Amino acid sequence: KITELIMNRKQKSMPLKGKSVVVTAGPTRERIDPVRYVSNFSTGKMGFAMARAAADLGAEVTLIAGPVTLETPAGVTRVDVESAADMLREVETRFASTDILIKTAAVADYKPKLQADQKIKKQDGDTVLEMERTTDILAHMGSIKSNQVVIGFAAETNDVEAYAEKKRVKKNADYIIANDVMQQGVGFGTDTNKVTVFSKSGKSDFPFLPKQQLALELLQFVAEQEGWHS
Amino acid sequence: KITELIMNRKQKSMPLKGKSVVVTAGPTRERIDPVRYVSNFSTGKMGFAMARAAADLGAEVTLIAGPVTLETPAGVTRVDVESAADMLREVETRFASTDILIKTAAVADYKPKLQADQKIKKQDGDTVLEMERTTDILAHMGSIKSNQVVIGFAAETNDVEAYAEKKRVKKNADYIIANDVMQQGVGFGTDTNKVTVFSKSGKSDFPFLPKQQLALELLQFVAEQEGWHS
Repeated sequence: KITELIMNRKQKSMPLKGKSVVVTAGPTRERIDPVRYVSNFSTGKMGFAMARAAADLGAEVTLIAGPVTLETPAGVTRVDVESAADMLREVETRFASTDILIKTAAVADYKPKLQADQKIKKQDGDTVLEMERTTDILAHMGSIKSNQVVIGFAAETNDVEAYAEKKRVKKNADYIIANDVMQQGVGFGTDTNKVTVFSKSGKSDFPFLPKQQLALELLQFVAEQEGWHS
Repeated sequence: KITELIMNRKQKSMPLKGKSVVVTAGPTRERIDPVRYVSNFSTGKMGFAMARAAADLGAEVTLIAGPVTLETPAGVTRVDVESAADMLREVETRFASTDILIKTAAVADYKPKLQADQKIKKQDGDTVLEMERTTDILAHMGSIKSNQVVIGFAAETNDVEAYAEKKRVKKNADYIIANDVMQQGVGFGTDTNKVTVFSKSGKSDFPFLPKQQLALELLQFVAEQEGWHS
């Protein structure tokens, strides 16, 4: 039934026609040395679903992807990156001409302070890896945005709702899409997801859905909220 | 010409017939919390090539693989693992009945001292990640081996040769296969490789070859050195 609804909508309307959409997806990798890195379990599925959904709704889509093993959706321009710094640069470059930024990527919050040119030889005993903060891409874009609609994701393992609304306000995002990655079938690596969206008009729960259907529902919802029609 | 040579040999001889071979391959992932981990750039290609070559030469092969996106070679039994501790356990369990251990995996040397149950919230400013040593699987197996032939790999970015021979002696390995991952077309993620093998009878250089051909050459070489015939 929901599928039919989506399909009907899809046939009828292209509410993102003429919009320039940038989607970030996947993890980033932060190098420790030429062979080792710090990363996370993001597989890029939700980001790739958002990119495809945006294209299906008529947008011109650029997908900025960390290291993942997914096929580029048809009609989407893809830019591959590795680190948080790479991803920030690619988002920033395009931001002035972006209408909607969808920041699905699980960007590293910390990177190693030093990146060794050569493989670090192991030693006996413990060691510490000194880490420094990366630039928070969502917060940075929120702070410099003019008319762009900025959509962030929150993948949390606890206190999801309290954290998500706080994140939206603090980062000046228009929408935060929150999921609890500790739930079965939700978050990293799964083909399904269940989210709650926080915006200035409040909180909206979405049903448990395949990621591709959910992506379409989410962008339809944003288009309605923003008053965009095909 | 080399291909023909290998193919001829392959038709003629099964020098690993009746041997039980365990191959480890790929990286390991060491979790920081439910979403973040430390890993390395190993793609598992060389290990999967070794497993396939061993099966082609008549062995019964178990492939213990870290997280990679490769197809299991035909006739090979595969066991998937995530961390260094998982990999050690799977190797140890089988070691008494193993004739040849081929330790191709790029096992993490260090893991986070603490693995948080919940996603660690980012804070302002720097942090340190406290790391402790994992068990050195090659050294551990070398120290307890009886009649097993133990083959290790050394992926180095500098002083490859000096390091490899030292590694062989220190870890009581029978063979160390050394490559310089800073060379073009060598090491992580490539389809080709160029190695030097260190054993008690000295040093042997191998030509630059596709990994699958090189794997066959390497196991033929080991079989000859050990006096195994089909």
